[in-house]
Amino acid sequence: MNWLYSRKLKMKERILTGDRPTGPLHLGHFVGSLQQRVTLQHSHDQTILVADLQALTDNGQNPQKISDNILNVVADYLAVGIDPEKTTICLQSALPALSELTMYYSNLVSIARLERNPTVKNEIHYRGFGKTIPAGFLTYPISQAADITAFRATQVPVGDDQLPMIEQTNEIVRRFNSVVHDQVLCECRAMLSHFPRLPGIDGKAKMSKSLGTAISLGATANEIRKAVKAMYTDPNHLRIDDPGQTEGNVVFTYLDAFHPDKTFVEELKAHYRRGGLGDGKTKQILEDCLQSMLDPIRAERERLLADKAMLIEVLRAGTEKANTVSQGVLLDVKRALGIALF
Amino acid sequence: MNWLYSRKLKMKERILTGDRPTGPLHLGHFVGSLQQRVTLQHSHDQTILVADLQALTDNGQNPQKISDNILNVVADYLAVGIDPEKTTICLQSALPALSELTMYYSNLVSIARLERNPTVKNEIHYRGFGKTIPAGFLTYPISQAADITAFRATQVPVGDDQLPMIEQTNEIVRRFNSVVHDQVLCECRAMLSHFPRLPGIDGKAKMSKSLGTAISLGATANEIRKAVKAMYTDPNHLRIDDPGQTEGNVVFTYLDAFHPDKTFVEELKAHYRRGGLGDGKTKQILEDCLQSMLDPIRAERERLLADKAMLIEVLRAGTEKANTVSQGVLLDVKRALGIALF
Repeated sequence: MNWLYSRKLKMKERILTGDRPTGPLHLGHFVGSLQQRVTLQHSHDQTILVADLQALTDNGQNPQKISDNILNVVADYLAVGIDPEKTTICLQSALPALSELTMYYSNLVSIARLERNPTVKNEIHYRGFGKTIPAGFLTYPISQAADITAFRATQVPVGDDQLPMIEQTNEIVRRFNSVVHDQVLCECRAMLSHFPRLPGIDGKAKMSKSLGTAISLGATANEIRKAVKAMYTDPNHLRIDDPGQTEGNVVFTYLDAFHPDKTFVEELKAHYRRGGLGDGKTKQILEDCLQSMLDPIRAERERLLADKAMLIEVLRAGTEKANTVSQGVLLDVKRALGIALF
Repeated sequence: MNWLYSRKLKMKERILTGDRPTGPLHLGHFVGSLQQRVTLQHSHDQTILVADLQALTDNGQNPQKISDNILNVVADYLAVGIDPEKTTICLQSALPALSELTMYYSNLVSIARLERNPTVKNEIHYRGFGKTIPAGFLTYPISQAADITAFRATQVPVGDDQLPMIEQTNEIVRRFNSVVHDQVLCECRAMLSHFPRLPGIDGKAKMSKSLGTAISLGATANEIRKAVKAMYTDPNHLRIDDPGQTEGNVVFTYLDAFHPDKTFVEELKAHYRRGGLGDGKTKQILEDCLQSMLDPIRAERERLLADKAMLIEVLRAGTEKANTVSQGVLLDVKRALGIALF
């Protein structure tokens, strides 16, 4: 490896991202993050965390939901083209440094500060927690700061609703560095997703597996067909000849997101708006598009899930690499605190 | 080793105890716990945690105070006769399982429950925290539950003000076992200290190093002399001939705690009560008693602290043993949660 090349390698931006394994990943993940990761893995030093610890913070009473989905998520990653040779795929609970860093950072963040976090506030409301919020859930932004800093991530792909998490992480970084009078941890920047969040098939803000408004990457041909049939369009578009709305019409939102021929989609929209194009037709076009996109992913996913030992080995090897990196950061932190005695 | 003997060993009660390394240990620790530990190490499977992680929960801004005192505390242990061959002395921050267990347990305890903990409430008040309480401090009862369960402790020596900690631990144990439908963790019992808390030399409830009302185990002869001279007695005992109060008179409290000849102390008390015994005399008796008790401890402490490498090795070896035990419990917990994939 020549000098220039190795220098370039060292200057690669480091990305940390991940998913809570609460269910198989779906089209919302695909368009919001998975596709981006497949691209970024060529240019960036990318680590993906299967965030089982974080998933347990609001599934403490139902750990099986999490354990059942760890390998599903790994299969989803590989099936969409995330390459474990290029991306470090690792299991959060198998990285002790993440828990240990969380403990140290917890002493630098007040309960009041956590309660002010807008993302957490929203989620508390969304999940119906009151004061019964588990300690692990209120404090998960601290755990996220541990994840990000443990890999010295310089960039973190997030939606704009997660910007407070980045802010909280950088606050901890500055607080820690100031306490130990040294630049031990590094700050990160948000990498904002260029694609807006994909709505559920009912047109609501978010795809939700539990509400049945998500199309998972492993959906059968029949499930895809049914989901597209049930899709929310323009409720005022009663007859084919009527002009129709494409804004807020989920079929067109999905066509924008997934159809490879953008010109064709624009022509279709124009036709729909002036009237004469029925929902049956547009839905058929979308279904064909999704079927041909998901068909090979589903097949690959099934092939991968038939060999659990291989999936475990991929995760183990990635976790081993991730352990080396995160233990290094932990050691820096403990040295700075003066407690790395042996 | 014959079968009966080995069986007896296995049935030993397991004790977990420890100290926050916020300063050198003092006479309050000596009478409240250290002497008990020296005795218990012969009959019990005893683990002592140098609780640096816990000490950082309210010293997050000043980690050096903690790092500076870790080896002091180890030297204190050895100087009073705690034998690292009989007792496992280990460093909390070097036991990753403790942080990891804390993460899992955090999902089973609500913020409201933590805020109701009477011990934490008192300490928040005592330390002047309001809502600015660090997350790590509010949640330290969860971390204590991790410590206790990580060693499958059956008995935990505590003062009666710490009973809520035992209750919280057992709540977590029952909650966890119920979630995973298995008896993975075991409950513990409080071992109440038979000796009441030693007051400070000013007669206030608690010895405090920061207020200068504690006599540390490494105090110089001159420091001991000055501390005894400054000791609170009976403010109404103005002339030697006056009858004096022995209740609340710190000199007698300390004589009760430390003088080897109980009959002599009782006679002294009777004399003081009927009058004719001056504070100068009783203080001299106490000073002689403390000097002769602390003289060899101070010498041993100095000898030990001159060889830091040896102290570190004692702590490292104990921590290695403790790691084996605590990693075993962690593995049981992760298996029960279904996330021990490799």
